[in-house]
Amino acid sequence: MTALETSLAFHHAWMAGDIDTALKHVAEDVVCDAPAGRLTGSAQFRSFIEPFSTILISSHLHAAFGDDTTAVLYYDTSTRPVPHAPAGECHTVADGLITHVRIVFDKSPFDAARRG
Amino acid sequence: MTALETSLAFHHAWMAGDIDTALKHVAEDVVCDAPAGRLTGSAQFRSFIEPFSTILISSHLHAAFGDDTTAVLYYDTSTRPVPHAPAGECHTVADGLITHVRIVFDKSPFDAARRG
Repeated sequence: MTALETSLAFHHAWMAGDIDTALKHVAEDVVCDAPAGRLTGSAQFRSFIEPFSTILISSHLHAAFGDDTTAVLYYDTSTRPVPHAPAGECHTVADGLITHVRIVFDKSPFDAARRG
Repeated sequence: MTALETSLAFHHAWMAGDIDTALKHVAEDVVCDAPAGRLTGSAQFRSFIEPFSTILISSHLHAAFGDDTTAVLYYDTSTRPVPHAPAGECHTVADGLITHVRIVFDKSPFDAARRG
């Protein structure tokens, strides 16, 4: 599997709400740099990606590219609190597992929705 | 020039604060989907990218990939109000000009810094 194939397998499983399959493509000691800060290890990472599945309505992948060690995804999501929530991710992949996730999205509309 | 070369020429000029050179790689009727909403035309787009140059301290490009029509960039920036502000961009490129910019970053720390 190329880095991109690994990233896409993770992405499609996550967007389908299949967290167990998504995490099969993620290293046990994954590091994830997200808007709220750094997460370390697959348990913390699960607690980040799992709740998102419960609010996700649909997603659309605009672009996905990679080489031997790196993959980048850019996609739109529609969620219950925020109708238009795009995101970008940059993955480092080693031995078929994602070891580092950089993810960026705009947290402000989610914060605003929570404040109600 | 490939889509990626066009995107990188834009990116490096923007990050160097050379807005005129950056805009040479952008179509007059560019559409830009940014966290604050949609911008249309190069004048609106300039008013989005120019102020950022004045607060930018440094940037680091983690990944850049593309094909004939699309390029994706993922980078970190350090800015005066927000020390760690990553961003992702997805560009559509036609005839050597960027016609559509999708850009995502977390607006919330910038909003918080403005509120002081």
